[in-house]
Amino acid sequence: MGKTKIIAPPGVPFIDMEREFDAPREFVHRAYMDPELVVQWLGPRKYEMKIDQWDARDGGAYRYVHSNESGSHAFHGVFHSMDIDNMVQTFEYEGAPGHVSLDAQVLEDLGNGRTRMRSHSVFMSVEDRDVMIENGMGDGVEDGYNRLDELIARLQPVGASSN
Amino acid sequence: MGKTKIIAPPGVPFIDMEREFDAPREFVHRAYMDPELVVQWLGPRKYEMKIDQWDARDGGAYRYVHSNESGSHAFHGVFHSMDIDNMVQTFEYEGAPGHVSLDAQVLEDLGNGRTRMRSHSVFMSVEDRDVMIENGMGDGVEDGYNRLDELIARLQPVGASSN
Repeated sequence: MGKTKIIAPPGVPFIDMEREFDAPREFVHRAYMDPELVVQWLGPRKYEMKIDQWDARDGGAYRYVHSNESGSHAFHGVFHSMDIDNMVQTFEYEGAPGHVSLDAQVLEDLGNGRTRMRSHSVFMSVEDRDVMIENGMGDGVEDGYNRLDELIARLQPVGASSN
Repeated sequence: MGKTKIIAPPGVPFIDMEREFDAPREFVHRAYMDPELVVQWLGPRKYEMKIDQWDARDGGAYRYVHSNESGSHAFHGVFHSMDIDNMVQTFEYEGAPGHVSLDAQVLEDLGNGRTRMRSHSVFMSVEDRDVMIENGMGDGVEDGYNRLDELIARLQPVGASSN
């Protein structure tokens, strides 16, 4: 069992996720905003990530490539608000051009230096959503958030956590 | 009855529309791409439109304002592909920040210099979709496409139409 709750209800083109992190939400927010941090956690561990563009502001764009010995996968999209209370961005896998999805992520302060991330993704069709699930999106997400846990452990000052 | 077919099926966050135009699809495409044409037709007739930004390419952004004596309404978003076969863009009304939707529009060649536009919009929730419908989105769209008909009549060379 992973630590990420993933819900994909039948008949609607949504994926909802929840995950808690042992860091203040300002830190988690920075891990989404700063490409030097993003590159250390986003996506499956088996790939190396290269960021071509990461302009995390309303109207800005991003593009990155995940690569390993078996190949490369490129993704791009654009940002709307990237406020800590509402981070909205699009997502397009360049291997399936035109199948764009839209993600909204919220970072909630749980107190005691902990944060709950809630994300809501919408797809252009239920079929697009199901393809994403079938292609192992859940494993990739879990892997990425585990790496974000590790980044938090590396970067948080010793003794800052109450654990 | 308007000339635009608008379908908003219950229980899913979609709006689908269809409309035919008496112009070749390259012309209709240009009317979506070129801000000097867009400003002449997009949105309800009762507003004057001012375009702040219209960078219709993958990763580009747009913003425009509809105004009249009773007030102003601003909208912005970003583009993915703007190919004639798949024009994808986001849409956010600045009066309801964070409620972003995603539109995909296709221009089909019907022969005889005619074009069918099919659009598919997805919203972050069924409620967001319903608010859009309740706020008179259908009338605004119909008005806009009627103005696009008029733009086509003004700009197409005399005798180019088979009517």
